[in-house]
Amino acid sequence: MTLKPVLAALALCSASVLAEPAPIALAIHGGAGTIDPAKMSADTRAAVQAKLDEALTSGYAVLKRGDSALDAVEAAVRVLEDSPLFNAGVGAVYTWDEGHELDASIMDGATLEAGAVAGVRTVKNPITLARHVMTDSPHVMLAGAGAEAFAAEQGLPQVANSHFDTESRLRSLKDAKAKIEAQEAVNHKAAVERLDTPFKMGTVGAVALDQGGNLAAATSTGGMTAKRWGRIGDSPVIGAGTYADNESCAVSATGHGEYFIRYNVAADICARVKYQGVTLEAASNTVIMERLKGVGGTGGVITVDPQGRVAMPFNTGGMYRASIDGQGNKVIAIWQEALE
Amino acid sequence: MTLKPVLAALALCSASVLAEPAPIALAIHGGAGTIDPAKMSADTRAAVQAKLDEALTSGYAVLKRGDSALDAVEAAVRVLEDSPLFNAGVGAVYTWDEGHELDASIMDGATLEAGAVAGVRTVKNPITLARHVMTDSPHVMLAGAGAEAFAAEQGLPQVANSHFDTESRLRSLKDAKAKIEAQEAVNHKAAVERLDTPFKMGTVGAVALDQGGNLAAATSTGGMTAKRWGRIGDSPVIGAGTYADNESCAVSATGHGEYFIRYNVAADICARVKYQGVTLEAASNTVIMERLKGVGGTGGVITVDPQGRVAMPFNTGGMYRASIDGQGNKVIAIWQEALE
Repeated sequence: MTLKPVLAALALCSASVLAEPAPIALAIHGGAGTIDPAKMSADTRAAVQAKLDEALTSGYAVLKRGDSALDAVEAAVRVLEDSPLFNAGVGAVYTWDEGHELDASIMDGATLEAGAVAGVRTVKNPITLARHVMTDSPHVMLAGAGAEAFAAEQGLPQVANSHFDTESRLRSLKDAKAKIEAQEAVNHKAAVERLDTPFKMGTVGAVALDQGGNLAAATSTGGMTAKRWGRIGDSPVIGAGTYADNESCAVSATGHGEYFIRYNVAADICARVKYQGVTLEAASNTVIMERLKGVGGTGGVITVDPQGRVAMPFNTGGMYRASIDGQGNKVIAIWQEALE
Repeated sequence: MTLKPVLAALALCSASVLAEPAPIALAIHGGAGTIDPAKMSADTRAAVQAKLDEALTSGYAVLKRGDSALDAVEAAVRVLEDSPLFNAGVGAVYTWDEGHELDASIMDGATLEAGAVAGVRTVKNPITLARHVMTDSPHVMLAGAGAEAFAAEQGLPQVANSHFDTESRLRSLKDAKAKIEAQEAVNHKAAVERLDTPFKMGTVGAVALDQGGNLAAATSTGGMTAKRWGRIGDSPVIGAGTYADNESCAVSATGHGEYFIRYNVAADICARVKYQGVTLEAASNTVIMERLKGVGGTGGVITVDPQGRVAMPFNTGGMYRASIDGQGNKVIAIWQEALE
């Protein structure tokens, strides 16, 4: 036996290893909630599916051409912000005062740099403002009128607050206010806590792994229907609604934000991966299906790790989501089963 | 040999075990920074020492009489908020527009309930408002004018924004603005990042363990000198500036807030204790002296665990701090060595 065939085989093998492209992966969500299949028309379902596909495709194209995970998550979230189907940007829920206050955040897993905005009213794409906060301000988190002044300095497109209006969200607000006011004589806190889940939820987000092995996460929301007092939820809170660290994973959350802040959900999933050495799937499931579910914290997360593995657990009836993992497997789903 | 003396000894021993009171512990801080000993007058040093002692004593008295860790941290922080010596409440730094925007948060380690406020201008004691957000609102985090409307509904004492004025902080603002404006033509971000550490730091906080074995943490601040655009630092961000979990520890942070948000400092220390099984001291030191210091993130933390152990590492020249640990050891310190 000569060495030739062995060397040839080794050469082939090594070439194939070299030719193997670095994995890329993207996952997006459009919010978790009860989402009763019986109450969703075929038209709505098709529209949601098409928009999730469009957002996924937009972000994935960024990764395929070799651009950054940050660019990919921003691109995907912008598509969802611009759609009236989801509670972020156009289609954001209404505050108690019949306006919209938008929150968003973005994080770079390579550098742990992050940007977040809370309570902005006139910035067309809050996720892009969050990215400018990260790259062009000395701060991580800006709020309210101050954040809008910064947006103006940065030359970002501004719109009237009514740009985000939709009829269906206005009906939801009136419904929520009636329910709260009917019980408010007793206790405002209890009245809000008794509200049905759909009023409290809805967020969009994306997580990505790029060819350079970098992770990123982004989240954007209109928050909770009928929110008052300048309420800030988990979406702009780094560690709660959004976290990304190349050493562990990237996470974007959706759900009853107060629980996600208290349980430090996004960073806790990354901490479990990093310190306990468990898989992304195990860490995500433990936090969402055990820890949060056990205390009534409704919602879900989308997550991706440096190997391109994706986990998207939720403890609600459904979660609008879509992903292409590191092996190229594509999923679009609302309930447990994929739609196609 | 009869059994009598043995039984008597056992009875005595058991009585002594029963009589051993559950440990209580309290640690407080008044901010970390360069704090040059050569530049601090003996009078200022004595005043700082006396005020730290007063805050410590106030909080510890709460624990000694069997009240909750939450009550203790709130009591201690209120003393520091009411003192012009520290950057919280009276003595808060000035914003770019020569006002004060105050942030605070509080967390209950027994229930993981939390409350936080950001950018409030007229609430006398922001830490007390944060506690009301926790107990009397359905939310965790409220900001700006909305948070003040909630404070008014709760009947909390309100003051003019000028209540928080101090001459020395106004001088610091003018100094900071001059330095920023001198460089701003180039790049605002770089100008702020080049500012000396003292302009970016200063916070007060407390962590406690009560007789019931419950932990709590509280943090309050005026934020960063000359801050703009509604900047929110780490103090009101649960997981960054404040975290408490009976299963691991309670943490209150002080330092360059942007780093503390990005590195999820308070919750990361608790996660290391919980998932890595390392001591509180090891976890705190790793995060402050290695992880943060390595990237230029200046500051420190005060921490306490369910056994009443206290760790207070800082990577700056000094940190105003004081503690009584579970064994009754009392420390008041600014630099590495205790003051007395």
